[in-house]
Amino acid sequence: MAEGGTRAAVRELYDAYARRDFDRVAALIHEDIDWVIYGPVGVFPFAGPRRGRAAVLQALGGIAEAYSLESYKPEIMIVDGDRAAVMSDVSFRQRATNRMLRFRLANFLRFQDGKVIEFREFANTFDVVEQALGRELQL
Amino acid sequence: MAEGGTRAAVRELYDAYARRDFDRVAALIHEDIDWVIYGPVGVFPFAGPRRGRAAVLQALGGIAEAYSLESYKPEIMIVDGDRAAVMSDVSFRQRATNRMLRFRLANFLRFQDGKVIEFREFANTFDVVEQALGRELQL
Repeated sequence: MAEGGTRAAVRELYDAYARRDFDRVAALIHEDIDWVIYGPVGVFPFAGPRRGRAAVLQALGGIAEAYSLESYKPEIMIVDGDRAAVMSDVSFRQRATNRMLRFRLANFLRFQDGKVIEFREFANTFDVVEQALGRELQL
Repeated sequence: MAEGGTRAAVRELYDAYARRDFDRVAALIHEDIDWVIYGPVGVFPFAGPRRGRAAVLQALGGIAEAYSLESYKPEIMIVDGDRAAVMSDVSFRQRATNRMLRFRLANFLRFQDGKVIEFREFANTFDVVEQALGRELQL
């Protein structure tokens, strides 16, 4: 895929997610996607590796079940051939407590046939876990 | 700076770090660098924001004091204009305990005049803290 195609696809993906158009997001996920959100599954059951669109949509459903997306702002978007990297400032509200979590996300993506086929997500999970629990972790 | 220049600079930076050539690394850091390693400073005193080359070299010195770099393998390198993003598989040995830590790093960089002027580092810090402490965190 040409770089312009990747740039258009990554913009469309993040625009769709930011406006909570999950049908459009689903359409931009490749059937054979290789996906990892790095984080502790004990706190974030939707974290960890997923293989294939159905498993990824289930993980996204898990996020939406526990958190409402309040704000998703890509701050840096880097595109190179069929790959992209995006750093975002995001806010999610924890439905059970109404607690607001705010943190940065770092995503690495690879596109094939206009869809995401590889996805890796990083966050400062020590801090995000403390925000989710509403208290400091004991060391 | 042209993209080819960014690609050469980012490769040189990571090659220098991987071979522990810290003088060369220092030469590739802009005097006015804006730097953040996202992580808990209680466990990793070298984490957090730093401004300027001297402060960054002090942070790098703090890493080297507590950990010896065993392996640093960039797996994905994305370059776009004056920006780059790099995902790496890294191993550090904790000097005090001889414990080996292995994890992935996600870096976002911006270059100016052939040097890094903006740097952001992400890792799954919940996991890295557990590796550094040698035990699971109590939730």
